[in-house]
Amino acid sequence: MSTSSASSASRTPVTVVGLGLMGHALAAAFLANGHPTTVWNRSAAKADDLVADGATLADSVKSAVEASPLVVVCVSDYDAVYALLDPVGSSLAGRTLLNLTTSSSTQAREAARWAADFDSSYLDGAILALPQAIGTADATLLYSGSKAAFEVHQATLQVLSETGTVYLDEDHGLSALYDMSILGIMWGVLNGFLQGAALLGTANVKATTFAPLARTAINVTTDYVSAYAQQIDEGNYPATDATVAVHRGGMEHLLHESDALGVNTELPKLFLDLAERAAADGHANDSYAALINQFRKRAV
Amino acid sequence: MSTSSASSASRTPVTVVGLGLMGHALAAAFLANGHPTTVWNRSAAKADDLVADGATLADSVKSAVEASPLVVVCVSDYDAVYALLDPVGSSLAGRTLLNLTTSSSTQAREAARWAADFDSSYLDGAILALPQAIGTADATLLYSGSKAAFEVHQATLQVLSETGTVYLDEDHGLSALYDMSILGIMWGVLNGFLQGAALLGTANVKATTFAPLARTAINVTTDYVSAYAQQIDEGNYPATDATVAVHRGGMEHLLHESDALGVNTELPKLFLDLAERAAADGHANDSYAALINQFRKRAV
Repeated sequence: MSTSSASSASRTPVTVVGLGLMGHALAAAFLANGHPTTVWNRSAAKADDLVADGATLADSVKSAVEASPLVVVCVSDYDAVYALLDPVGSSLAGRTLLNLTTSSSTQAREAARWAADFDSSYLDGAILALPQAIGTADATLLYSGSKAAFEVHQATLQVLSETGTVYLDEDHGLSALYDMSILGIMWGVLNGFLQGAALLGTANVKATTFAPLARTAINVTTDYVSAYAQQIDEGNYPATDATVAVHRGGMEHLLHESDALGVNTELPKLFLDLAERAAADGHANDSYAALINQFRKRAV
Repeated sequence: MSTSSASSASRTPVTVVGLGLMGHALAAAFLANGHPTTVWNRSAAKADDLVADGATLADSVKSAVEASPLVVVCVSDYDAVYALLDPVGSSLAGRTLLNLTTSSSTQAREAARWAADFDSSYLDGAILALPQAIGTADATLLYSGSKAAFEVHQATLQVLSETGTVYLDEDHGLSALYDMSILGIMWGVLNGFLQGAALLGTANVKATTFAPLARTAINVTTDYVSAYAQQIDEGNYPATDATVAVHRGGMEHLLHESDALGVNTELPKLFLDLAERAAADGHANDSYAALINQFRKRAV
Protein backbone atom coordinates (compact mmCIF):
# COMPACT_ATOMS: atom_id res chain seq x y z
CA MET A 1 0.00 0.00 0.00
CA SER A 2 2.99 2.32 0.50
CA THR A 3 3.13 4.77 -2.38
CA SER A 4 6.88 5.37 -2.18
CA SER A 5 9.96 3.56 -0.98
CA ALA A 6 10.56 5.95 1.92
CA SER A 7 10.92 4.22 5.26
CA SER A 8 8.30 4.73 7.95
CA ALA A 9 10.76 6.86 9.84
CA SER A 10 10.48 9.61 7.21
CA ARG A 11 6.67 9.79 7.40
CA THR A 12 4.92 12.16 9.75
CA PRO A 13 3.75 10.40 12.91
CA VAL A 14 -0.02 10.59 13.30
CA THR A 15 -2.24 10.09 16.32
CA VAL A 16 -5.86 9.03 15.95
CA VAL A 17 -8.16 9.52 18.93
CA GLY A 18 -11.43 7.63 18.59
CA LEU A 19 -11.65 4.25 16.87
CA GLY A 20 -15.26 4.04 15.81
CA LEU A 21 -15.80 2.70 12.29
CA MET A 22 -14.49 5.91 10.75
CA GLY A 23 -11.61 6.54 13.17
CA HIS A 24 -10.49 2.96 12.71
CA ALA A 25 -10.50 3.38 8.91
CA LEU A 26 -8.45 6.58 9.21
CA ALA A 27 -5.86 4.94 11.47
CA ALA A 28 -5.65 1.90 9.19
CA ALA A 29 -5.01 4.14 6.16
CA PHE A 30 -2.20 6.05 7.90
CA LEU A 31 -0.66 2.82 9.12
CA ALA A 32 -0.88 1.12 5.72
CA ASN A 33 0.94 4.06 4.16
CA GLY A 34 3.87 3.87 6.51
CA HIS A 35 2.99 6.60 9.01
CA PRO A 36 3.99 5.82 12.60
CA THR A 37 0.48 5.66 14.02
CA THR A 38 -0.54 6.06 17.64
CA VAL A 39 -4.13 5.32 18.60
CA TRP A 40 -6.36 5.78 21.60
CA ASN A 41 -9.89 4.64 22.21
CA ARG A 42 -12.09 4.46 25.28
CA SER A 43 -12.35 0.70 24.85
CA ALA A 44 -8.82 -0.38 23.97
CA ALA A 45 -9.92 -3.64 22.30
CA LYS A 46 -10.96 -1.65 19.21
CA ALA A 47 -7.24 -1.12 18.61
CA ASP A 48 -6.24 -4.79 18.63
CA ASP A 49 -5.97 -5.36 14.89
CA LEU A 50 -4.30 -1.98 14.38
CA VAL A 51 -1.71 -2.83 17.04
CA ALA A 52 -1.17 -6.22 15.36
CA ASP A 53 -0.41 -4.27 12.16
CA GLY A 54 2.12 -2.04 13.91
CA ALA A 55 0.16 0.80 15.54
CA THR A 56 1.07 2.00 19.01
CA LEU A 57 -1.72 1.96 21.59
CA ALA A 58 -1.31 4.94 23.90
CA ASP A 59 -2.06 4.36 27.56
CA SER A 60 -3.67 7.79 27.95
CA VAL A 61 -5.10 10.57 25.81
CA LYS A 62 -2.19 12.74 26.98
CA SER A 63 0.47 10.34 25.75
CA ALA A 64 -1.50 9.82 22.52
CA VAL A 65 -1.52 13.57 21.85
CA GLU A 66 2.16 13.91 22.72
CA ALA A 67 3.18 11.12 20.31
CA SER A 68 2.60 13.06 17.07
CA PRO A 69 2.67 16.52 15.48
CA LEU A 70 -0.69 15.71 13.82
CA VAL A 71 -3.52 14.67 16.12
CA VAL A 72 -6.72 13.49 14.46
CA VAL A 73 -9.86 13.26 16.56
CA CYS A 74 -12.97 11.51 15.25
CA VAL A 75 -15.54 10.84 17.96
CA SER A 76 -19.32 10.98 18.30
CA ASP A 77 -19.77 14.69 18.96
CA TYR A 78 -18.07 17.85 20.18
CA ASP A 79 -18.92 17.19 23.83
CA ALA A 80 -16.80 14.06 23.53
CA VAL A 81 -14.01 16.07 21.86
CA TYR A 82 -13.87 18.52 24.76
CA ALA A 83 -14.24 15.82 27.41
CA LEU A 84 -11.20 14.02 26.00
CA LEU A 85 -8.96 16.89 24.94
CA ASP A 86 -9.68 19.84 27.21
CA PRO A 87 -7.98 18.18 30.22
CA VAL A 88 -4.82 17.66 28.12
CA GLY A 89 -5.08 20.95 26.22
CA SER A 90 -1.61 22.13 27.15
CA SER A 91 -0.21 19.06 25.37
CA LEU A 92 -1.74 20.33 22.12
CA ALA A 93 0.60 23.33 22.02
CA GLY A 94 2.58 23.45 18.80
CA ARG A 95 0.69 20.53 17.31
CA THR A 96 -1.99 20.47 14.64
CA LEU A 97 -5.37 19.23 15.80
CA LEU A 98 -7.55 17.92 12.98
CA ASN A 99 -11.12 17.45 14.12
CA LEU A 100 -13.10 15.12 11.85
CA THR A 101 -16.03 14.84 14.24
CA THR A 102 -19.31 15.82 12.58
CA SER A 103 -20.28 19.33 13.66
CA SER A 104 -22.02 22.54 12.81
CA SER A 105 -20.07 25.54 11.51
CA THR A 106 -20.72 27.33 14.81
CA GLN A 107 -19.23 24.42 16.77
CA ALA A 108 -16.21 24.29 14.47
CA ARG A 109 -15.53 28.01 14.88
CA GLU A 110 -15.86 27.70 18.67
CA ALA A 111 -13.47 24.75 18.69
CA ALA A 112 -10.96 26.80 16.70
CA ARG A 113 -11.01 29.50 19.39
CA TRP A 114 -10.67 26.85 22.10
CA ALA A 115 -7.68 25.27 20.30
CA ALA A 116 -6.06 28.68 19.74
CA ASP A 117 -6.06 29.21 23.50
CA PHE A 118 -3.77 26.17 23.71
CA ASP A 119 -1.52 27.44 20.88
CA SER A 120 -2.67 24.55 18.73
CA SER A 121 -3.15 24.86 14.97
CA TYR A 122 -6.68 23.81 14.26
CA LEU A 123 -8.18 22.19 11.18
CA ASP A 124 -11.79 21.19 10.97
CA GLY A 125 -12.73 18.54 8.45
CA ALA A 126 -15.72 16.79 6.97
CA ILE A 127 -15.67 13.32 5.48
CA LEU A 128 -17.90 12.70 2.47
CA ALA A 129 -17.36 8.98 2.39
CA LEU A 130 -18.22 5.73 4.06
CA PRO A 131 -15.45 4.22 6.23
CA GLN A 132 -14.72 1.57 3.60
CA ALA A 133 -13.99 4.28 1.01
CA ILE A 134 -11.21 5.89 3.07
CA GLY A 135 -7.97 5.72 1.10
CA THR A 136 -9.78 5.37 -2.24
CA ALA A 137 -10.81 7.77 -4.99
CA ASP A 138 -14.42 7.46 -3.75
CA ALA A 139 -13.63 9.49 -0.62
CA THR A 140 -13.82 13.28 -0.48
CA LEU A 141 -12.51 15.04 2.61
CA LEU A 142 -13.03 18.77 3.10
CA TYR A 143 -10.72 20.83 5.30
CA SER A 144 -11.04 24.35 6.63
CA GLY A 145 -9.06 26.44 9.07
CA SER A 146 -5.31 27.02 9.22
CA LYS A 147 -4.02 26.91 5.65
CA ALA A 148 -0.44 26.74 6.92
CA ALA A 149 -1.25 23.63 8.96
CA PHE A 150 -3.05 22.08 6.00
CA GLU A 151 -0.06 22.63 3.76
CA VAL A 152 2.34 21.13 6.28
CA HIS A 153 0.21 17.99 6.49
CA GLN A 154 -1.27 17.86 3.00
CA ALA A 155 0.79 14.85 1.87
CA THR A 156 -0.20 12.96 5.01
CA LEU A 157 -3.88 13.80 4.55
CA GLN A 158 -3.76 12.63 0.94
CA VAL A 159 -3.29 9.14 2.35
CA LEU A 160 -7.02 9.34 3.14
CA SER A 161 -7.85 10.26 -0.46
CA GLU A 162 -5.22 11.21 -2.97
CA THR A 163 -7.62 13.00 -5.32
CA GLY A 164 -10.43 13.90 -2.92
CA THR A 165 -8.49 16.10 -0.48
CA VAL A 166 -10.04 19.57 -0.66
CA TYR A 167 -8.87 22.60 1.29
CA LEU A 168 -11.66 25.19 1.45
CA ASP A 169 -10.90 28.29 3.46
CA GLU A 170 -9.37 29.80 6.60
CA ASP A 171 -12.93 30.02 8.02
CA HIS A 172 -13.01 26.92 10.25
CA GLY A 173 -16.78 26.66 9.84
CA LEU A 174 -16.72 25.99 6.11
CA SER A 175 -16.10 22.26 6.07
CA ALA A 176 -19.16 21.75 8.30
CA LEU A 177 -21.21 24.11 6.16
CA TYR A 178 -20.21 22.38 2.94
CA ASP A 179 -20.85 19.01 4.56
CA MET A 180 -24.43 19.98 5.47
CA SER A 181 -25.00 21.63 2.10
CA ILE A 182 -23.87 18.57 0.20
CA LEU A 183 -25.87 16.18 2.38
CA GLY A 184 -28.89 18.43 1.82
CA ILE A 185 -28.54 17.99 -1.93
CA MET A 186 -28.22 14.24 -1.57
CA TRP A 187 -31.39 14.03 0.53
CA GLY A 188 -33.09 16.30 -2.00
CA VAL A 189 -32.21 13.93 -4.83
CA LEU A 190 -33.16 10.81 -2.90
CA ASN A 191 -36.47 12.20 -1.66
CA GLY A 192 -37.35 13.35 -5.18
CA PHE A 193 -36.63 9.86 -6.41
CA LEU A 194 -38.71 8.25 -3.64
CA GLN A 195 -41.66 10.55 -4.40
CA GLY A 196 -41.50 9.44 -8.05
CA ALA A 197 -41.03 5.78 -7.17
CA ALA A 198 -44.09 5.98 -4.91
CA LEU A 199 -46.17 7.68 -7.63
CA LEU A 200 -45.15 5.17 -10.29
CA GLY A 201 -45.61 2.33 -7.84
CA THR A 202 -49.35 3.07 -7.89
CA ALA A 203 -49.29 1.96 -11.54
CA ASN A 204 -47.11 -1.07 -10.71
CA VAL A 205 -44.01 0.44 -12.29
CA LYS A 206 -40.96 -1.00 -10.58
CA ALA A 207 -38.41 1.32 -9.03
CA THR A 208 -35.70 -0.37 -11.09
CA THR A 209 -37.69 0.45 -14.24
CA PHE A 210 -37.88 4.09 -13.18
CA ALA A 211 -34.23 4.34 -12.08
CA PRO A 212 -32.56 4.79 -15.50
CA LEU A 213 -34.88 7.67 -16.46
CA ALA A 214 -34.48 9.09 -12.97
CA ARG A 215 -30.70 9.05 -13.38
CA THR A 216 -30.98 10.81 -16.72
CA ALA A 217 -33.17 13.48 -15.13
CA ILE A 218 -30.71 13.96 -12.30
CA ASN A 219 -27.84 14.34 -14.71
CA VAL A 220 -29.75 16.89 -16.79
CA THR A 221 -30.43 18.88 -13.64
CA THR A 222 -26.71 19.26 -12.91
CA ASP A 223 -26.49 21.55 -15.95
CA TYR A 224 -29.15 23.79 -14.45
CA VAL A 225 -27.19 23.92 -11.19
CA SER A 226 -24.24 25.55 -12.93
CA ALA A 227 -26.39 28.03 -14.84
CA TYR A 228 -28.45 28.94 -11.77
CA ALA A 229 -25.34 29.35 -9.61
CA GLN A 230 -24.19 32.09 -11.95
CA GLN A 231 -27.59 33.81 -11.79
CA ILE A 232 -27.55 33.61 -7.99
CA ASP A 233 -24.13 35.24 -7.78
CA GLU A 234 -25.27 37.96 -10.19
CA GLY A 235 -28.59 38.47 -8.36
CA ASN A 236 -30.35 38.39 -11.70
CA TYR A 237 -32.62 35.56 -12.80
CA PRO A 238 -33.50 35.67 -16.51
CA ALA A 239 -35.83 32.79 -17.40
CA THR A 240 -33.95 31.40 -20.37
CA ASP A 241 -35.66 28.07 -19.71
CA ALA A 242 -38.89 27.91 -17.69
CA THR A 243 -40.31 30.64 -15.44
CA VAL A 244 -41.26 30.23 -11.79
CA ALA A 245 -44.89 30.48 -12.98
CA VAL A 246 -44.39 27.51 -15.30
CA HIS A 247 -42.72 25.50 -12.53
CA ARG A 248 -45.59 26.39 -10.21
CA GLY A 249 -48.06 25.00 -12.73
CA GLY A 250 -46.11 21.75 -12.90
CA MET A 251 -45.94 21.57 -9.12
CA GLU A 252 -49.71 21.91 -8.89
CA HIS A 253 -49.94 18.88 -11.16
CA LEU A 254 -47.48 16.95 -9.00
CA LEU A 255 -49.42 17.84 -5.86
CA HIS A 256 -52.80 16.91 -7.31
CA GLU A 257 -51.43 13.72 -8.84
CA SER A 258 -49.87 12.68 -5.53
CA ASP A 259 -53.05 13.52 -3.66
CA ALA A 260 -55.31 11.71 -6.15
CA LEU A 261 -53.16 8.58 -5.97
CA GLY A 262 -52.96 8.60 -2.17
CA VAL A 263 -49.20 9.02 -1.87
CA ASN A 264 -47.45 11.48 0.43
CA THR A 265 -48.05 15.12 -0.53
CA GLU A 266 -45.67 16.88 1.87
CA LEU A 267 -42.77 17.30 -0.53
CA PRO A 268 -44.93 18.46 -3.48
CA LYS A 269 -46.76 20.82 -1.12
CA LEU A 270 -43.48 22.35 0.05
CA PHE A 271 -42.23 22.67 -3.55
CA LEU A 272 -45.43 24.49 -4.46
CA ASP A 273 -45.40 26.71 -1.36
CA LEU A 274 -41.88 27.89 -2.11
CA ALA A 275 -42.68 28.61 -5.76
CA GLU A 276 -45.89 30.42 -4.84
CA ARG A 277 -44.05 32.60 -2.36
CA ALA A 278 -41.37 33.34 -4.95
CA ALA A 279 -44.09 34.36 -7.40
CA ALA A 280 -45.76 36.51 -4.74
CA ASP A 281 -42.38 38.18 -4.12
CA GLY A 282 -42.30 39.27 -7.77
CA HIS A 283 -40.35 36.38 -9.29
CA ALA A 284 -43.14 34.75 -11.34
CA ASN A 285 -41.37 35.52 -14.60
CA ASP A 286 -37.86 34.79 -13.34
CA SER A 287 -35.97 31.53 -13.56
CA TYR A 288 -36.07 28.92 -10.82
CA ALA A 289 -32.83 30.35 -9.42
CA ALA A 290 -34.90 33.22 -7.98
CA LEU A 291 -36.12 30.78 -5.31
CA ILE A 292 -32.76 31.35 -3.59
CA ASN A 293 -34.48 34.32 -1.94
CA GLN A 294 -36.99 31.96 -0.29
CA PHE A 295 -34.22 29.69 0.97
CA ARG A 296 -32.23 32.61 2.35
CA LYS A 297 -34.91 33.60 4.84
CA ARG A 298 -37.04 31.98 7.47
CA ALA A 299 -40.53 31.02 6.38
CA VAL A 300 -43.15 33.48 7.53
CA MET B 1 -32.88 19.50 -42.04
CA SER B 2 -34.40 16.50 -43.88
CA THR B 3 -32.64 13.35 -42.77
CA SER B 4 -33.25 11.42 -45.98
CA SER B 5 -33.83 12.15 -49.64
CA ALA B 6 -37.42 10.89 -49.62
CA SER B 7 -39.88 13.38 -51.02
CA SER B 8 -42.44 14.98 -48.72
CA ALA B 9 -45.11 12.93 -50.41
CA SER B 10 -43.77 9.75 -48.80
CA ARG B 11 -43.80 11.20 -45.28
CA THR B 12 -46.82 10.83 -43.01
CA PRO B 13 -48.95 13.97 -42.98
CA VAL B 14 -49.17 15.45 -39.48
CA THR B 15 -51.62 17.92 -37.97
CA VAL B 16 -50.65 20.08 -35.02
CA VAL B 17 -53.46 21.73 -33.06
CA GLY B 18 -52.22 24.46 -30.76
CA LEU B 19 -49.29 26.70 -31.63
CA GLY B 20 -48.03 27.89 -28.29
CA LEU B 21 -44.25 27.85 -27.90
CA MET B 22 -44.21 24.07 -27.71
CA GLY B 23 -46.81 23.35 -30.38
CA HIS B 24 -45.03 25.71 -32.71
CA ALA B 25 -41.72 23.90 -32.13
CA LEU B 26 -43.39 20.54 -32.81
CA ALA B 27 -44.93 21.76 -36.08
CA ALA B 28 -41.64 23.32 -37.17
CA ALA B 29 -39.81 20.03 -36.57
CA PHE B 30 -42.31 17.99 -38.61
CA LEU B 31 -42.21 20.57 -41.40
CA ALA B 32 -38.42 20.74 -41.46
CA ASN B 33 -38.28 16.99 -41.84
CA GLY B 34 -40.50 16.87 -44.86
CA HIS B 35 -43.83 15.92 -43.32
CA PRO B 36 -46.85 17.58 -44.92
CA THR B 37 -47.90 19.65 -41.91
CA THR B 38 -51.30 21.12 -41.22
CA VAL B 39 -51.70 23.52 -38.34
CA TRP B 40 -54.51 25.17 -36.46
CA ASN B 41 -54.41 27.75 -33.72
CA ARG B 42 -57.02 29.95 -32.10
CA SER B 43 -55.11 33.03 -33.23
CA ALA B 44 -54.06 32.19 -36.77
CA ALA B 45 -51.18 34.68 -36.83
CA LYS B 46 -49.09 32.24 -34.77
CA ALA B 47 -48.95 30.10 -37.91
CA ASP B 48 -47.56 32.79 -40.22
CA ASP B 49 -43.92 31.69 -40.27
CA LEU B 50 -44.89 28.01 -40.48
CA VAL B 51 -47.11 28.74 -43.47
CA ALA B 52 -44.27 30.69 -45.06
CA ASP B 53 -42.17 27.54 -44.66
CA GLY B 54 -44.80 25.36 -46.33
CA ALA B 55 -47.31 24.41 -43.64
CA THR B 56 -51.03 24.41 -44.41
CA LEU B 57 -53.21 26.54 -42.16
CA ALA B 58 -56.54 24.78 -41.67
CA ASP B 59 -59.62 26.98 -41.61
CA SER B 60 -61.25 24.89 -38.88
CA VAL B 61 -60.34 22.31 -36.27
CA LYS B 62 -62.43 19.81 -38.24
CA SER B 63 -60.48 20.28 -41.46
CA ALA B 64 -57.22 20.24 -39.48
CA VAL B 65 -58.10 16.87 -37.95
CA GLU B 66 -59.24 15.47 -41.29
CA ALA B 67 -55.98 16.45 -43.01
CA SER B 68 -53.75 13.82 -41.37
CA PRO B 69 -53.69 10.30 -39.95
CA LEU B 70 -51.67 11.65 -36.99
CA VAL B 71 -53.20 14.52 -35.03
CA VAL B 72 -51.05 16.13 -32.37
CA VAL B 73 -52.69 18.38 -29.81
CA CYS B 74 -50.65 20.56 -27.47
CA VAL B 75 -52.70 23.18 -25.68
CA SER B 76 -52.89 24.68 -22.20
CA ASP B 77 -54.95 22.02 -20.45
CA TYR B 78 -57.43 19.20 -20.94
CA ASP B 79 -60.44 21.49 -20.82
CA ALA B 80 -59.03 23.14 -23.93
CA VAL B 81 -58.46 19.73 -25.54
CA TYR B 82 -62.10 18.75 -25.06
CA ALA B 83 -63.42 22.18 -26.06
CA LEU B 84 -61.56 21.92 -29.36
CA LEU B 85 -61.86 18.22 -30.20
CA ASP B 86 -65.08 16.93 -28.67
CA PRO B 87 -67.26 18.81 -31.21
CA VAL B 88 -65.29 17.18 -34.05
CA GLY B 89 -64.87 13.80 -32.35
CA SER B 90 -66.37 11.82 -35.20
CA SER B 91 -63.59 13.13 -37.45
CA LEU B 92 -61.04 11.44 -35.18
CA ALA B 93 -62.28 7.97 -36.17
CA GLY B 94 -59.49 5.84 -37.61
CA ARG B 95 -56.85 8.45 -36.81
CA THR B 96 -54.25 8.53 -34.07
CA LEU B 97 -54.64 11.34 -31.56
CA LEU B 98 -51.43 12.21 -29.75
CA ASN B 99 -52.09 14.44 -26.79
CA LEU B 100 -48.98 16.28 -25.60
CA THR B 101 -50.90 18.61 -23.30
CA THR B 102 -49.59 18.43 -19.73
CA SER B 103 -51.93 16.32 -17.61
CA SER B 104 -52.32 14.00 -14.70
CA SER B 105 -52.46 10.24 -15.19
CA THR B 106 -56.15 10.29 -14.28
CA GLN B 107 -56.86 12.87 -16.98
CA ALA B 108 -54.87 10.89 -19.54
CA ARG B 109 -56.77 7.69 -18.77
CA GLU B 110 -60.10 9.53 -19.02
CA ALA B 111 -59.07 11.05 -22.35
CA ALA B 112 -58.18 7.59 -23.64
CA ARG B 113 -61.72 6.39 -22.86
CA TRP B 114 -63.16 9.51 -24.51
CA ALA B 115 -61.05 8.94 -27.65
CA ALA B 116 -61.98 5.25 -27.76
CA ASP B 117 -65.65 6.26 -27.99
CA PHE B 118 -64.75 7.97 -31.29
CA ASP B 119 -62.77 4.93 -32.53
CA SER B 120 -59.58 6.96 -32.35
CA SER B 121 -56.25 5.45 -31.36
CA TYR B 122 -54.99 7.45 -28.44
CA LEU B 123 -51.45 8.19 -27.33
CA ASP B 124 -50.66 10.37 -24.39
CA GLY B 125 -47.27 11.96 -24.26
CA ALA B 126 -45.04 14.04 -22.02
CA ILE B 127 -42.29 16.32 -23.24
CA LEU B 128 -39.18 16.55 -21.06
CA ALA B 129 -37.62 19.41 -22.97
CA LEU B 130 -37.81 23.10 -23.62
CA PRO B 131 -39.33 24.10 -26.97
CA GLN B 132 -35.90 25.01 -28.36
CA ALA B 133 -34.66 21.45 -27.69
CA ILE B 134 -37.34 19.82 -29.85
CA GLY B 135 -35.65 17.94 -32.69
CA THR B 136 -32.36 17.62 -30.78
CA ALA B 137 -30.77 14.96 -28.61
CA ASP B 138 -31.57 17.11 -25.56
CA ALA B 139 -35.27 16.33 -25.86
CA THR B 140 -36.91 13.31 -24.26
CA LEU B 141 -40.53 12.52 -25.14
CA LEU B 142 -42.43 9.83 -23.29
CA TYR B 143 -45.38 8.04 -24.85
CA SER B 144 -48.00 5.76 -23.38
CA GLY B 145 -51.16 4.17 -24.67
CA SER B 146 -51.73 2.26 -27.90
CA LYS B 147 -48.49 0.47 -28.71
CA ALA B 148 -49.76 -0.31 -32.19
CA ALA B 149 -50.37 3.38 -32.88
CA PHE B 150 -46.95 4.25 -31.50
CA GLU B 151 -45.27 1.73 -33.77
CA VAL B 152 -47.11 3.02 -36.84
CA HIS B 153 -45.94 6.56 -36.11
CA GLN B 154 -42.61 5.91 -34.41
CA ALA B 155 -40.50 7.15 -37.32
CA THR B 156 -42.55 10.34 -37.50
CA LEU B 157 -42.26 10.91 -33.74
CA GLN B 158 -38.50 10.45 -33.89
CA VAL B 159 -38.41 13.71 -35.82
CA LEU B 160 -39.02 15.33 -32.41
CA SER B 161 -36.06 13.48 -30.88
CA GLU B 162 -34.28 10.68 -32.65
CA THR B 163 -32.72 9.22 -29.50
CA GLY B 164 -35.13 10.51 -26.85
CA THR B 165 -38.34 8.86 -28.06
CA VAL B 166 -39.47 6.52 -25.28
CA TYR B 167 -42.54 4.29 -25.41
CA LEU B 168 -43.56 3.31 -21.88
CA ASP B 169 -46.68 1.20 -21.63
CA GLU B 170 -50.23 0.56 -22.81
CA ASP B 171 -51.43 2.33 -19.63
CA HIS B 172 -52.22 5.80 -20.98
CA GLY B 173 -51.55 7.35 -17.60
CA LEU B 174 -47.88 6.45 -17.48
CA SER B 175 -46.37 9.30 -19.48
CA ALA B 176 -48.04 11.80 -17.13
CA LEU B 177 -46.92 9.81 -14.10
CA TYR B 178 -43.33 9.62 -15.32
CA ASP B 179 -43.44 13.31 -16.21
CA MET B 180 -44.47 14.28 -12.67
CA SER B 181 -42.01 11.82 -11.14
CA ILE B 182 -39.11 13.19 -13.14
CA LEU B 183 -40.04 16.81 -12.48
CA GLY B 184 -40.26 15.93 -8.79
CA ILE B 185 -36.66 14.70 -8.86
CA MET B 186 -35.51 17.84 -10.65
CA TRP B 187 -37.18 20.08 -8.07
CA GLY B 188 -35.67 17.89 -5.35
CA VAL B 189 -32.18 18.42 -6.76
CA LEU B 190 -32.65 22.14 -7.31
CA ASN B 191 -34.14 22.79 -3.88
CA GLY B 192 -31.35 20.82 -2.24
CA PHE B 193 -28.86 22.96 -4.12
CA LEU B 194 -30.63 26.20 -3.15
CA GLN B 195 -30.68 25.16 0.53
CA GLY B 196 -26.92 24.61 0.36
CA ALA B 197 -26.28 27.80 -1.58
CA ALA B 198 -28.26 29.73 1.04
CA LEU B 199 -26.33 28.10 3.91
CA LEU B 200 -22.95 28.74 2.31
CA GLY B 201 -24.03 32.22 1.35
CA THR B 202 -24.09 33.10 5.06
CA ALA B 203 -20.30 32.59 4.99
CA ASN B 204 -19.97 34.56 1.74
CA VAL B 205 -19.30 31.46 -0.34
CA LYS B 206 -20.46 32.09 -3.90
CA ALA B 207 -22.96 29.75 -5.49
CA THR B 208 -20.54 29.29 -8.40
CA THR B 209 -17.87 28.17 -5.90
CA PHE B 210 -20.29 25.64 -4.44
CA ALA B 211 -21.61 24.40 -7.80
CA PRO B 212 -18.74 22.04 -8.78
CA LEU B 213 -18.88 20.20 -5.44
CA ALA B 214 -22.67 20.20 -5.64
CA ARG B 215 -22.48 18.57 -9.07
CA THR B 216 -20.11 15.92 -7.74
CA ALA B 217 -22.51 15.20 -4.88
CA ILE B 218 -25.44 14.93 -7.28
CA ASN B 219 -23.55 12.52 -9.49
CA VAL B 220 -22.56 10.36 -6.53
CA THR B 221 -26.21 10.18 -5.50
CA THR B 222 -27.22 8.65 -8.83
CA ASP B 223 -25.37 5.50 -7.79
CA TYR B 224 -27.48 5.28 -4.66
CA VAL B 225 -30.64 5.65 -6.78
CA SER B 226 -29.86 2.45 -8.65
CA ALA B 227 -28.98 0.51 -5.51
CA TYR B 228 -32.02 1.76 -3.61
CA ALA B 229 -34.35 1.01 -6.55
CA GLN B 230 -33.37 -2.63 -6.28
CA GLN B 231 -34.00 -2.65 -2.53
CA ILE B 232 -37.40 -1.00 -3.06
CA ASP B 233 -38.44 -3.65 -5.58
CA GLU B 234 -37.26 -6.40 -3.22
CA GLY B 235 -38.96 -4.79 -0.20
CA ASN B 236 -35.75 -5.31 1.77
CA TYR B 237 -33.49 -2.48 2.87
CA PRO B 238 -30.10 -3.67 4.15
CA ALA B 239 -28.00 -0.69 5.26
CA THR B 240 -24.83 -1.43 3.34
CA ASP B 241 -24.00 2.28 3.55
CA ALA B 242 -25.61 4.47 6.21
CA THR B 243 -28.66 3.65 8.32
CA VAL B 244 -31.78 5.79 8.62
CA ALA B 245 -30.59 6.55 12.17
CA VAL B 246 -27.31 7.93 10.82
CA HIS B 247 -29.14 10.01 8.20
CA ARG B 248 -31.46 11.31 10.91
CA GLY B 249 -28.45 12.47 12.92
CA GLY B 250 -27.11 14.34 9.91
CA MET B 251 -30.51 15.90 9.25
CA GLU B 252 -30.64 17.20 12.80
CA HIS B 253 -27.33 18.93 12.10
CA LEU B 254 -28.69 20.39 8.85
CA LEU B 255 -31.81 21.64 10.61
CA HIS B 256 -29.91 23.18 13.51
CA GLU B 257 -27.32 24.71 11.20
CA SER B 258 -30.02 26.24 9.00
CA ASP B 259 -31.89 27.53 12.02
CA ALA B 260 -28.75 28.96 13.67
CA LEU B 261 -27.81 30.79 10.48
CA GLY B 262 -31.30 32.15 9.86
CA VAL B 263 -31.95 30.41 6.55
CA ASN B 264 -35.14 28.58 5.64
CA THR B 265 -35.68 25.42 7.71
CA GLU B 266 -38.72 23.93 5.95
CA LEU B 267 -36.85 21.50 3.72
CA PRO B 268 -34.47 20.27 6.48
CA LYS B 269 -37.48 19.93 8.80
CA LEU B 270 -39.35 17.80 6.27
CA PHE B 271 -36.26 15.65 5.65
CA LEU B 272 -35.97 15.05 9.39
CA ASP B 273 -39.69 14.41 9.88
CA LEU B 274 -39.69 11.73 7.20
CA ALA B 275 -36.59 10.04 8.60
CA GLU B 276 -37.96 10.16 12.14
CA ARG B 277 -41.22 8.57 11.02
CA ALA B 278 -39.29 5.88 9.14
CA ALA B 279 -37.29 5.17 12.30
CA ALA B 280 -40.49 5.07 14.35
CA ASP B 281 -41.92 2.58 11.84
CA GLY B 282 -39.03 0.22 12.61
CA HIS B 283 -36.59 1.28 9.88
CA ALA B 284 -33.91 2.94 12.04
CA ASN B 285 -31.32 0.34 11.08
CA ASP B 286 -32.39 0.03 7.45
CA SER B 287 -31.00 1.90 4.47
CA TYR B 288 -32.45 5.19 3.24
CA ALA B 289 -34.49 3.24 0.69
CA ALA B 290 -36.84 2.23 3.52
CA LEU B 291 -38.24 5.78 3.40
CA ILE B 292 -40.24 4.63 0.36
CA ASN B 293 -42.83 3.50 2.89
CA GLN B 294 -43.25 7.08 4.09
CA PHE B 295 -43.67 8.38 0.54
CA ARG B 296 -46.21 5.69 -0.30
CA LYS B 297 -48.72 6.90 2.26
CA ARG B 298 -50.38 10.11 3.29
CA ALA B 299 -48.79 11.89 6.23
CA VAL B 300 -50.67 11.30 9.47
